[in-house]
Amino acid sequence: MARFITFLTDFGLQDDFVGTCHGVIKRIAPDTQIIDITHGIPAQGVLQGALTLANSLPFMPAGIHLAVVDPGVGGARRALALRDESGRVHVGPDNGLLIPAAEKFGGIAEAHELANPEYALESVSRTFHGRDLFAPAAAHLSLGVELAKLGPPIAPDALARLDLPEPEVGAARIRSTVLAIDRFGNVQLNLDRSHIDEVGILPGTRIELQVGPERYYAVAARTFAAARPGDLILYEDSYRNLSVAINGGNAASMLGLKPGRDLRIQLEPS
Amino acid sequence: MARFITFLTDFGLQDDFVGTCHGVIKRIAPDTQIIDITHGIPAQGVLQGALTLANSLPFMPAGIHLAVVDPGVGGARRALALRDESGRVHVGPDNGLLIPAAEKFGGIAEAHELANPEYALESVSRTFHGRDLFAPAAAHLSLGVELAKLGPPIAPDALARLDLPEPEVGAARIRSTVLAIDRFGNVQLNLDRSHIDEVGILPGTRIELQVGPERYYAVAARTFAAARPGDLILYEDSYRNLSVAINGGNAASMLGLKPGRDLRIQLEPS
Amino acid sequence: MARFITFLTDFGLQDDFVGTCHGVIKRIAPDTQIIDITHGIPAQGVLQGALTLANSLPFMPAGIHLAVVDPGVGGARRALALRDESGRVHVGPDNGLLIPAAEKFGGIAEAHELANPEYALESVSRTFHGRDLFAPAAAHLSLGVELAKLGPPIAPDALARLDLPEPEVGAARIRSTVLAIDRFGNVQLNLDRSHIDEVGILPGTRIELQVGPERYYAVAARTFAAARPGDLILYEDSYRNLSVAINGGNAASMLGLKPGRDLRIQLEPS
Repeated sequence: MARFITFLTDFGLQDDFVGTCHGVIKRIAPDTQIIDITHGIPAQGVLQGALTLANSLPFMPAGIHLAVVDPGVGGARRALALRDESGRVHVGPDNGLLIPAAEKFGGIAEAHELANPEYALESVSRTFHGRDLFAPAAAHLSLGVELAKLGPPIAPDALARLDLPEPEVGAARIRSTVLAIDRFGNVQLNLDRSHIDEVGILPGTRIELQVGPERYYAVAARTFAAARPGDLILYEDSYRNLSVAINGGNAASMLGLKPGRDLRIQLEPS
Repeated sequence: MARFITFLTDFGLQDDFVGTCHGVIKRIAPDTQIIDITHGIPAQGVLQGALTLANSLPFMPAGIHLAVVDPGVGGARRALALRDESGRVHVGPDNGLLIPAAEKFGGIAEAHELANPEYALESVSRTFHGRDLFAPAAAHLSLGVELAKLGPPIAPDALARLDLPEPEVGAARIRSTVLAIDRFGNVQLNLDRSHIDEVGILPGTRIELQVGPERYYAVAARTFAAARPGDLILYEDSYRNLSVAINGGNAASMLGLKPGRDLRIQLEPS
Repeated sequence: MARFITFLTDFGLQDDFVGTCHGVIKRIAPDTQIIDITHGIPAQGVLQGALTLANSLPFMPAGIHLAVVDPGVGGARRALALRDESGRVHVGPDNGLLIPAAEKFGGIAEAHELANPEYALESVSRTFHGRDLFAPAAAHLSLGVELAKLGPPIAPDALARLDLPEPEVGAARIRSTVLAIDRFGNVQLNLDRSHIDEVGILPGTRIELQVGPERYYAVAARTFAAARPGDLILYEDSYRNLSVAINGGNAASMLGLKPGRDLRIQLEPS
C-alpha cells in the first residue's frame, strides 16, 4: 500500500529547508511518498497555514499530514502529533495550525506530545524543529509507529487554538476580513455562501465594496467568464469561500488589500 | 512499467493549487510519478506555456502530459485530451496550449472532449478545472483508461489554435518578437538559426539590436564564454531558439524587454 | 534498495530548467528518486551553493549528489564526478562547488572528468550542461555505472577550489562576512561557536554590530524565544553557523545586509 506524507510550511523554496526535511524523511522512510501542498504560506502566518491546510487536505490521500508554521520554535509551545476521527494523523507545533483541518475530519480523537527522542534526530536544534523533530516523527509514523509511542497524551481541549476573524453581517451590509491573497490576486474573505444569502446577494446582484474610504462597484457572479474584462466580481471560489476577483486582472493590487484588512460589502441601493 | 504524468501550469508555488492537484492525482493513481515541468508560466500566458511545453516535452518520458494555463476557465472553452502521432497523451484546455507540443510529436491523432463525469471529481467547480477535471482525467489515463471513454471525439482541425508571432526577415535586418525571459534575464526570440543564416549572421558577426528608439551593439556567438563579461550576445540557446544574453548579466533588464516586445536586429554596416 | 539523486542548482523554478533535468533523469533511471535540495541559490552563486550543499548533505540519504551552479558553462571548466571517502558520489562543474561537501564526508577519494558521450545526451548544447551532461551522468551513476567509465581520472588536488572568506578575530572584536540570507531575513556569518568563544561572547552577552558606519545593539542568545520581539540576536543556527536574526522580524533588511558584506561584532564596553 502506498504511504503518504503531505507537507505544508512557510519555509519558501529559496533555501534548503524544505529539501532538507525531505532528506530527513527519506533516510527514515525511503518508500514513503511526499506531497508538497505548498511552502508559500506567508512567513509565520499560522492562520493562513491552518486555513490552507483545512482547504486542501480533503483532496489529499489519507496519511500523515505534516505542517510547520512555527513562530514559537524553541520556546514553550509543545510539539504535537494528533489523530483525527477519520484516522488521519497530523504533525506540527501546538499553536493552532493543525486544528481547523482536524475538525474538517470530525475532530481530534487523540493527541500526543512529541517527547520521545527515539523518533527525533539525535541532536535537536533550538531553531529548526521542522527538520529535527517534526519530519522524523512524520517519517516514523508513516512506517506504522503508534502515535502513543511518540510521547505522553494531551487532552484535546488543552491544545492551543486560533482566533478566526468573524464577519459582522447586518441588514444590507457585511463587514468581512481578508484571509488570503492568491497568486492571481484573488482575495479570499472569511465568508461563505450562507453569509451572502443572509443579506440577499444573488448572482447578478450589484454591490459596493468599501476598503477604508474607497468605494468600488462589483457584481456577484458564478464565474469569471460571466463578467466583462476588468469587472470586479464577488464569487464562491473553488474551496467554497467567498472571494473577490477581477476578470483578467489582479483584484488585490487594485483594491490595495492584504491579509487581515477589512472589506465591507454593501448592497447597491436600487 | 513506470507511469508518468508531466505537469505544467501558471499556478505558481505560493498557493496550494499545484499541491492540491498532486493530491488529486495520487488519490486516483498512487503509483504514477509526477514530473513538474514548471508552474512558473506567467499568469494566463497561454502562448508561453505552449512554447515551454513544446520545448521541454522531448526531454520527458512518454506518458500523460497535463498542462493548465486557462484564462477561459468556467466559460465556453472545452476541456480536452488528445493523443499525438507518437502515442503521447496531452490533457488541458482547448485554447491552443497543447498544440505546438503535439505537433512536435507528429501532430494530433485523435482528440476527445472531457465530458464523462466518471473521470472527474464528484463536484466540478467553475474556477478550478485543474483540480476537478484535468488532474483526475490525467490520473485515470495514466492507469490505462482509453481516451475514447473520456468523452466525444473532436475533429483535430476544430481545436483552438494560437497565433504565433512571425518574424519579418529582410535583406540585412530582422524584426523579431520576444517570446520569453528566463530567470537569468536571457531573452528568447521567435527566431531559429535559419533566420539568421538567411541574413548572413555568423558567429563573430557584429550586429545592432534596436528596442524602440534605443540601439545596442552585440555580437553573434556560440557560447557565453566566447564573449567578454558585459558583452551582449545573440546565440542559439539550448532549445535551438535564438536568444539574447549578456555574459555575466541580465539582458532583459538592461534592454528593458518583456514578452511580446519587438526587437530589431541589423547587420552592422561594415 | 531505494536509489536517490539529490539535486541543487541556481536554476530557480520560474522556468522549465529543473523540470527538464528531472525528465532527463527519469528517462534514464525511472525508479531513481530525486530529492530537490533547493533551486534557489542566487544566480551564479557558486560559494553559496557550495555552502548550502555542505550544510544539507549530512541530512540526505547517501546516493548521487548532483549540483549545478555553473557560470563557466561552455568555457574551459571541466565537468566532474567525484567519490568522497564515505562513498557518496558528487556530480557537477569543476569550479569548487562540490568540494566543501566532499570534505565534510572525509575528502575526495577519486575524481573523473565527464568525457564519455555514452553517458551524456546525444547532442550536448553549449549553455545547458545541467540537462545534457550532468543530469544524464547522475542518472547513469544512480543505476550503478562505475565512476571510472565516465571519463579519465583527475588528481583531487588538480580540482578548482573556492576562496572561503576568513573572519578576523581580535581581542574584543570580530570582523566577519555575510555568507547567506535566508527567506526569514536571518543573516548567516562565516563564524562558528569557536570564534565567539575566543572573544568571550556567551549567551546573554550584550554586543554591538557594525555595518559600515551604522551601529546596532544586539544580544547573544540560544534561541529566538530568549529575546524580546524586535531584539537583534546573535545565535548558533541549526547548521551550527553563527547567524544574526530579529525575533519576529527581518534582520537582513533592517541591517541592510547582503551576501559578501562585512559585519563587525564588538563586545559592548561594560
